[in-house]
Amino acid sequence: MRYVLKIAYDGTSYAGWQRQKNAVSVQQRLEEALLQALGTEVKVTASGRTDAGVHALGQVCHFDAEVSVPPEKMPDCVNRFLPDDIRAIKGWQAEDGFDSNRSAKRKTYCYRLYEGDKENPLLSRYAVRIENLPEVSLLQDAARLFEGTHDFKAFCASGSSVKTTVRTVYEVKVVKEQVFSQPIISVYVTGNGFLYNMVRTMVGELIEIAAGRKTADSLQKAYETGERNLLGKTMAAKGLTLVDVVYQD
Amino acid sequence: MRYVLKIAYDGTSYAGWQRQKNAVSVQQRLEEALLQALGTEVKVTASGRTDAGVHALGQVCHFDAEVSVPPEKMPDCVNRFLPDDIRAIKGWQAEDGFDSNRSAKRKTYCYRLYEGDKENPLLSRYAVRIENLPEVSLLQDAARLFEGTHDFKAFCASGSSVKTTVRTVYEVKVVKEQVFSQPIISVYVTGNGFLYNMVRTMVGELIEIAAGRKTADSLQKAYETGERNLLGKTMAAKGLTLVDVVYQD
Repeated sequence: MRYVLKIAYDGTSYAGWQRQKNAVSVQQRLEEALLQALGTEVKVTASGRTDAGVHALGQVCHFDAEVSVPPEKMPDCVNRFLPDDIRAIKGWQAEDGFDSNRSAKRKTYCYRLYEGDKENPLLSRYAVRIENLPEVSLLQDAARLFEGTHDFKAFCASGSSVKTTVRTVYEVKVVKEQVFSQPIISVYVTGNGFLYNMVRTMVGELIEIAAGRKTADSLQKAYETGERNLLGKTMAAKGLTLVDVVYQD
Repeated sequence: MRYVLKIAYDGTSYAGWQRQKNAVSVQQRLEEALLQALGTEVKVTASGRTDAGVHALGQVCHFDAEVSVPPEKMPDCVNRFLPDDIRAIKGWQAEDGFDSNRSAKRKTYCYRLYEGDKENPLLSRYAVRIENLPEVSLLQDAARLFEGTHDFKAFCASGSSVKTTVRTVYEVKVVKEQVFSQPIISVYVTGNGFLYNMVRTMVGELIEIAAGRKTADSLQKAYETGERNLLGKTMAAKGLTLVDVVYQD
């Protein structure tokens, strides 16, 4: 039977989703917990990697196991063996042919920013401080430039091997939110898939354009040439959270 | 010169504000950082202690020092030597006779709750999960019972030595908020002073009354008799944040 789990994690202490040789990953901790819970080794596949330090509220993963645990009981079963910063929040049986990675239709990430001249210790695990954050309306205008189908090669960390760097971004939504009585800006990015570092580079460029330091033209040139050095910096991992993975069209 | 600092901290790693023999406190880390920053030992007094694990967004403290640092530069000066989970966010010179503890007129604490059958790793450092959280309107109704001037002896951890256990609670405000896309309930409590554990016991009792497991009568009896065992449990420290200290009437 193929089990599907929706999981949430605080990525601060992990070298990302994928197993690493010299660092602890979320995948490793989850597979270890499943071994303890089920008494059998399983290999877990996720909708996609998240980088070191990136968080998740709705990561989806699957594994195959011949055990007697009902799928909806799997979260409680494995949570007993997981560290506090990783939680399985929902479990169900996979439909025929389901693969958490290949069947994913769209994903939503959230990048969180706050303005201030001092760090806020209650925000700084999950959001990134910017000294002069552009107006929300300017960020919203700039957000439009990233929507649509583009070649995002320039947004991608070098060294990654993917067949195509063309992706479709369905929506980039910039919203003002209050977290722990502090105003923050959340940038929600929904697309059919994301390259390594793509959201973090996109948010960096979004700020540059909204602040007037870069233009729509220079972004267009980055789409056309694929040159990384036309873009601003890659934003820190801790501001990024994988919010949702959708499997229906 | 008397310096005043407004500080924020994530209390997770600390044994509370006050210096302890066998555990690290916020006061200790701050005094150590000031020693490094100023080259002279100072003793810091806060508006009040916060317990182990309790957070602060607006703790106020003061110290006396004969140094050349302008008060508004003191935060940057000390932040260089503070750990990431403690930040000085504002500095100014004390007015004549100011004492961060004795001059405090009112304080506001916030207690954060969220409903769910699973822990949420992105909320669980700063909020407490409740399996069946009563409706907001019921919590708001119950909140009225704690407002006013009462003898809060029953809400106070035993062993504390205070002259009087009578305190005035100006407001208990229950609001729905969104944090990291998750709904939470925040309980803001403003009063002229708080006994040890008072807010945490108050929130526990607030939930009991809103859920119908306790009544206004049993609360009234607790005010009259001062008996701790008439009240519900003391809520976990991690849900509590000292939000604001006010010095003007």
